[in-house]
Amino acid sequence: MSILIKNILLDNQQRDIFIQGNKIEKIGEHLNMQADEEIDGNGKTVLPGLLNMHTHSAMTLFRGYADDMPLQKWLEQKIWPLEAKLTAEDVYWGMKLACLEMIKTGTTTFADNYWFVPAGAKAVEEMGLRAVLAPPFFDLFDARKRKEAIKQTEEVFQESKNFNPRISFGLGPHSIYTVSEQGLRWLSEFAKQHNLFIQIHLSETKKEVEDCHERYNKRPAEFLDSIDFLDKNVLAAHSIWLNKNEMDILTKKRVSVAYNPCSNMKLSSGIFNYSEAKKAGLNITLGTDGCASNNNLDMFEEMKIAALLQKLDNPENLPADECLQLATQNGAKFLDLENGIEEGKLADLILIDRQKSFFTPGHNFISDIVYSAQGDCVSDVICDGKVLMRNRKVEGEEEILRKAQEVVANLLKR
Amino acid sequence: MSILIKNILLDNQQRDIFIQGNKIEKIGEHLNMQADEEIDGNGKTVLPGLLNMHTHSAMTLFRGYADDMPLQKWLEQKIWPLEAKLTAEDVYWGMKLACLEMIKTGTTTFADNYWFVPAGAKAVEEMGLRAVLAPPFFDLFDARKRKEAIKQTEEVFQESKNFNPRISFGLGPHSIYTVSEQGLRWLSEFAKQHNLFIQIHLSETKKEVEDCHERYNKRPAEFLDSIDFLDKNVLAAHSIWLNKNEMDILTKKRVSVAYNPCSNMKLSSGIFNYSEAKKAGLNITLGTDGCASNNNLDMFEEMKIAALLQKLDNPENLPADECLQLATQNGAKFLDLENGIEEGKLADLILIDRQKSFFTPGHNFISDIVYSAQGDCVSDVICDGKVLMRNRKVEGEEEILRKAQEVVANLLKR
Repeated sequence: MSILIKNILLDNQQRDIFIQGNKIEKIGEHLNMQADEEIDGNGKTVLPGLLNMHTHSAMTLFRGYADDMPLQKWLEQKIWPLEAKLTAEDVYWGMKLACLEMIKTGTTTFADNYWFVPAGAKAVEEMGLRAVLAPPFFDLFDARKRKEAIKQTEEVFQESKNFNPRISFGLGPHSIYTVSEQGLRWLSEFAKQHNLFIQIHLSETKKEVEDCHERYNKRPAEFLDSIDFLDKNVLAAHSIWLNKNEMDILTKKRVSVAYNPCSNMKLSSGIFNYSEAKKAGLNITLGTDGCASNNNLDMFEEMKIAALLQKLDNPENLPADECLQLATQNGAKFLDLENGIEEGKLADLILIDRQKSFFTPGHNFISDIVYSAQGDCVSDVICDGKVLMRNRKVEGEEEILRKAQEVVANLLKR
Repeated sequence: MSILIKNILLDNQQRDIFIQGNKIEKIGEHLNMQADEEIDGNGKTVLPGLLNMHTHSAMTLFRGYADDMPLQKWLEQKIWPLEAKLTAEDVYWGMKLACLEMIKTGTTTFADNYWFVPAGAKAVEEMGLRAVLAPPFFDLFDARKRKEAIKQTEEVFQESKNFNPRISFGLGPHSIYTVSEQGLRWLSEFAKQHNLFIQIHLSETKKEVEDCHERYNKRPAEFLDSIDFLDKNVLAAHSIWLNKNEMDILTKKRVSVAYNPCSNMKLSSGIFNYSEAKKAGLNITLGTDGCASNNNLDMFEEMKIAALLQKLDNPENLPADECLQLATQNGAKFLDLENGIEEGKLADLILIDRQKSFFTPGHNFISDIVYSAQGDCVSDVICDGKVLMRNRKVEGEEEILRKAQEVVANLLKR
């Protein structure tokens, strides 16, 4: 399978891009090559596919179910009771809906943390995206629950060997306040043994820091360091309440963090300290979090809000070009993904339709991408060398919208 | 001219809406009426057109020209030098671009503050929107400049008598730190005499409050009150640094305020105190500010960011339904506009296409509008009884994008 994109703008130059298999084989002017498929790039600009580095995709099913509530009440009265009734089929359609939304808004890779991983993986495989899927791991400091969680993790890990190569299995310890030291140690060992990514919520709330101090007499990242948990395979979502020492520890251990501005604002979690994290040298990625606390998966909107939130104190903080890096190369760095519009790199790319008021007059394309555009500027999406969206049409989208409504209607009746 | 919208969702009920002239004449089930034009509302929901209550529309031309800079440097080195070269034709095309963007994102009425009002009015008239257009008034505490500004204001006011009735002429004193007490007193008198709206930037920065204290030994709103400037025809943009007493004064004088979250974040101006302003009883409207500090005019995005910013401290602040009111009825209240989806009201309405992932599964439509949707969910726009957008197509849009690029290219060469 080969694709030839003709006359596309790349770094302000008109180029042709030839894709063979799942790689960008050739970039040049007026390429004279035969391809199975040709895409007219006129009026469009190519960018690498975006990476959404922290989400709970199938929570698309809970979009708008409960808002404007304090975190604990929201979780205990609304989200958890409904989650308890979820089936694999629900998650399959929730994930299909999430993938559809990510494709429509230019995301080609995502790091996910949710239940029923095999059902999710089936949806991701069908939709064509790249993902790390991690089942949540909770033991609530209970030996019996830990045993059960370990058993489940091992089972899904075995199943994951049959997943499409675009999909990696990851480990998803929920947090240091829901997983015991023994649980975390087991996960860390299991990850090393099988070369797996770990995604954990870290220092999301001030309370987490206080509770950690009480339990372990250490701050969250210091505690994780003390049990040898931190390594370059670890992605720490939120990481809002890190102090300078914790940032230095994470940097030294080559941990990456995921900044989730919409969710952090909506749940009053706090403001990620981007400037200090950058100064410490941390690899900072960007994520939307789940649709229950955002309420969409549009990384364009997330980039804008990411930058604006950092500017509350200083307008020079998190400029547009850095913000785009958060959503592209920093995520790729964590995943060790050969991503970018260069020969030999993976063919994960998105075409941006510049024929929109948001890109007019066009003083600065990167500024327009971050501050002005929204996900609907994406006209075409290619992931792993396959076209997932053509002129904003994704195969089967009507069915996905219909089925997602159906499974939710049934879920609410259960 | 009459329009019949068939099978549209209104407050969760399937309805037909019959528009005659510029008013909604009839709302009911299965209306059996002949209309010049019929619109199929299947799969769509009707909302009142949104009101963008603070912007500098033609600054679309400066979108992306300068970002990530401190306010004074941004104004002095970038914005003002380029603004000094603007012509009426530039503003005409900048305004056409702004109107196109507002139509595409569901705004039907806006309060504008910018140069070359007659050129702007011509563009608004052609594009079909409703607006209050106010020329900026500066005297910089200089008698000669004041005389000149008064003369210009009187001239444009005379010209405005020929504007389309959808367009009101307003007064636009820039601020208390750029307009003298004499200037403000003259404007206030002129407004009373001719029944005009006044738009002023108020308490946008902490420095403004400090400087005001130094100059007048009062806080900004207290000073304006002391010169009898405040009345229900006054719209105070930003109003970030108001204290409790100032909020009470503005409420008592029935002044409205415009909250501009994106701009306030991007320029590090501060956070509007919504909770206190609401408690004081202020009429709070919403605006995008100009595209140089936003960088778009999408009121859907503005609603989301408006709510998220207020939730930094408390997730219960500014819930979705209140946020939609900011963008609809509160603006209409200031303008005394008969707006809303009811018989006898002005036919300013937008159709929302629910066939989008953002509205799926659809637990709560208002939540989806505020937190999940973006401007591209608007399929059709009717203002003053005329269809301005049909299935996302606006007449002449390609020409507007092209001409806006052209005038900017010429502007940069001047």
